[in-house]
Amino acid sequence: MTEIKEIIQELIKFRNERDWEQFHNPKDLALAINIEASELLELFLWKNADEADKEKVKEELADVFAFAFLLANKYKIDVKEIVLEKIKKNGEKYPVAKAKGTAKKYDEL
Amino acid sequence: MTEIKEIIQELIKFRNERDWEQFHNPKDLALAINIEASELLELFLWKNADEADKEKVKEELADVFAFAFLLANKYKIDVKEIVLEKIKKNGEKYPVAKAKGTAKKYDEL
Amino acid sequence: MTEIKEIIQELIKFRNERDWEQFHNPKDLALAINIEASELLELFLWKNADEADKEKVKEELADVFAFAFLLANKYKIDVKEIVLEKIKKNGEKYPVAKAKGTAKKYDEL
Amino acid sequence: MTEIKEIIQELIKFRNERDWEQFHNPKDLALAINIEASELLELFLWKNADEADKEKVKEELADVFAFAFLLANKYKIDVKEIVLEKIKKNGEKYPVAKAKGTAKKYDEL
Repeated sequence: MTEIKEIIQELIKFRNERDWEQFHNPKDLALAINIEASELLELFLWKNADEADKEKVKEELADVFAFAFLLANKYKIDVKEIVLEKIKKNGEKYPVAKAKGTAKKYDEL
Repeated sequence: MTEIKEIIQELIKFRNERDWEQFHNPKDLALAINIEASELLELFLWKNADEADKEKVKEELADVFAFAFLLANKYKIDVKEIVLEKIKKNGEKYPVAKAKGTAKKYDEL
Repeated sequence: MTEIKEIIQELIKFRNERDWEQFHNPKDLALAINIEASELLELFLWKNADEADKEKVKEELADVFAFAFLLANKYKIDVKEIVLEKIKKNGEKYPVAKAKGTAKKYDEL
Repeated sequence: MTEIKEIIQELIKFRNERDWEQFHNPKDLALAINIEASELLELFLWKNADEADKEKVKEELADVFAFAFLLANKYKIDVKEIVLEKIKKNGEKYPVAKAKGTAKKYDEL
């Protein structure tokens, strides 16, 4: 079994033991990802870029991943496949010759 | 090499070809995760829980994962390890006997 | 009529002309606030604190306010009243003697 | 003095008593708006659209408004003006004849 499948298996075991699948519709999972992402963001609020507490980052980032994996699972999405596809797509939007060394959005390049 | 390391390797290759590491400090990566999570959320806005367009979900979820993996990599965080640790921790906050079948937060159980 | 009531009146006129009240339940309005707040945040991504484009900030901030006013209206909430009450409450959480000059959260003071 | 100016005056008084202006750069204020918007969103998580606790909505919505007003003030932005301008602009993007009764985005109309 791949690493990501193993993680998802553990998340589903945890969820099912608590009978929580009934709450985990795609929309609320998207809300949950946002809420956890925002708790992660709060660790950087009023701070310089590298002043967040790493142990807390681990916890909040874990929550982001947990709900992101659960949403992927809900749609039977293969995480590796969609990320690699997006990299390919972004390669077209951000060709090296134009995008190198600049943080501009593709529509401003 | 594990699946997640492979994904991160591809993300870093893409980033380095464009010389973007200079922009990818932890704080802005946390912003990026939030921005992508919110674009994912928008696919559900004004809709029922299961009415989002799956192809668009794939793209936005891929972006969430991409920046989440890059932030993990920035801190040398092992994704599998932190998710499994968080599951364990949540097992204590949400014991089955109390949490089964309810969506209440741990401080309301 | 107060300034805020005037703004809300215009927002409702716009909404009703389009028959959009049916979509504006409290939960989706909360989603909309988050989505607009995130578009505002994107104007600062990969940038120094003061490098956002002011004209774009105006537009995205206007969207945040628009949905925040609509949610306030949905619950018959008086904006001035709740903000002044929150200031009072925060005054207790963040007494001047403890909070002066520090960005720490109240539970770390 | 208008209602909004009064609110902002109180927010600034609170901020200055604590010497917090040093932390309130535009980027971190945008982060703060997102974090508060997300705490508001959490009140709706795993719930039906109208099941949030109104008293908690008041508190979190107050926080969203507080930071949104502070950001407006930072840029010397007139809140009423930008919202009315955005309504006008949205009127062009969403003409009544096309947008009535549908929640589609303007680029799908």
